[in-house]
Amino acid sequence: MGRWDPDARGRLMKAAMELYAERGFEPTTVADIAARAGLTERTFFRHFADKREVLFSGSAALQELMVGAVAMAPESATPIEAVAAGVEAAAGVIRDRKYSLERQKLIEAHPVLRERELIKMASLASAFAATLRKRGVNDPAATLTSEAGIAVFRIAFERWVKDSGNREFVALIREGFAELRSLVA
Amino acid sequence: MGRWDPDARGRLMKAAMELYAERGFEPTTVADIAARAGLTERTFFRHFADKREVLFSGSAALQELMVGAVAMAPESATPIEAVAAGVEAAAGVIRDRKYSLERQKLIEAHPVLRERELIKMASLASAFAATLRKRGVNDPAATLTSEAGIAVFRIAFERWVKDSGNREFVALIREGFAELRSLVA
Repeated sequence: MGRWDPDARGRLMKAAMELYAERGFEPTTVADIAARAGLTERTFFRHFADKREVLFSGSAALQELMVGAVAMAPESATPIEAVAAGVEAAAGVIRDRKYSLERQKLIEAHPVLRERELIKMASLASAFAATLRKRGVNDPAATLTSEAGIAVFRIAFERWVKDSGNREFVALIREGFAELRSLVA
Repeated sequence: MGRWDPDARGRLMKAAMELYAERGFEPTTVADIAARAGLTERTFFRHFADKREVLFSGSAALQELMVGAVAMAPESATPIEAVAAGVEAAAGVIRDRKYSLERQKLIEAHPVLRERELIKMASLASAFAATLRKRGVNDPAATLTSEAGIAVFRIAFERWVKDSGNREFVALIREGFAELRSLVA
């Protein structure tokens, strides 16, 4: 195994998910994950800060993508339309429903993971609000719209991974925004 | 100082806030807080799990009060009206704006406190959703309405503590719900 391995990250993620499923999240160590992937602990830590972060791999890139979509919404878009564009952009890249469901079950079962998820979602909402402010939306409208949009995102995601009807993620997001509108009307 | 002190809790809270302001949150120890209050560390831990919890004292009671108000909303209330009743109930008991502002600044300045706050808010949203389900509201409507209501609560609270216009908390909550309605329309 050379020091440089183009797929080290993917192998570590796969190994981690296997071990979390087989042995549970708590008992699994970074050493176990590295060994299963045929890599060193040192390599693990070049890719992830800790064993929780494996489950949030790509969250910075996802945030950039979603924030980019808010920023690029047409000038004529209302704040909620811009936020909806940001949330819908996620559906273009979150495609692996089986992985997403396994990950979601792990997060729901472990308060330390749930905590990390809450922080990521709060960060995403803040980034959305900052982007809306750049679009000329004042507070509290910017924050309120962003928080509401992130709530739609989280709920649509949970429905998507658990839904037995195999409905599309983007359809559930659109339904969520429509439902929000009718609920607060 | 007797072992039993009816106001130990209040004195510990006051001592903690003073020390957090004077020395900062991180350097302050539980021993410092107990000493300032003229009490023992043992007494501190009878009241609070750690030095973070001092800032979330009463959050369980607040949650009960708010959830109670959702449950007691008239049968004819829509889900968002029931949630709004729960959020407004908070304004009846959160009255000390000066303390609330100091607390808010501390929370914003320290990620460990921000984390704890996010967890409390997620728990409140879950409790609201469970109460709506008991009222016959299905998911995702129950979760979505609750999350949106908690977003209004958090934003109204922040505005209230920082607002230079001395506006009433309940007025800012009502404005938040009205704004949410117009933003998603």
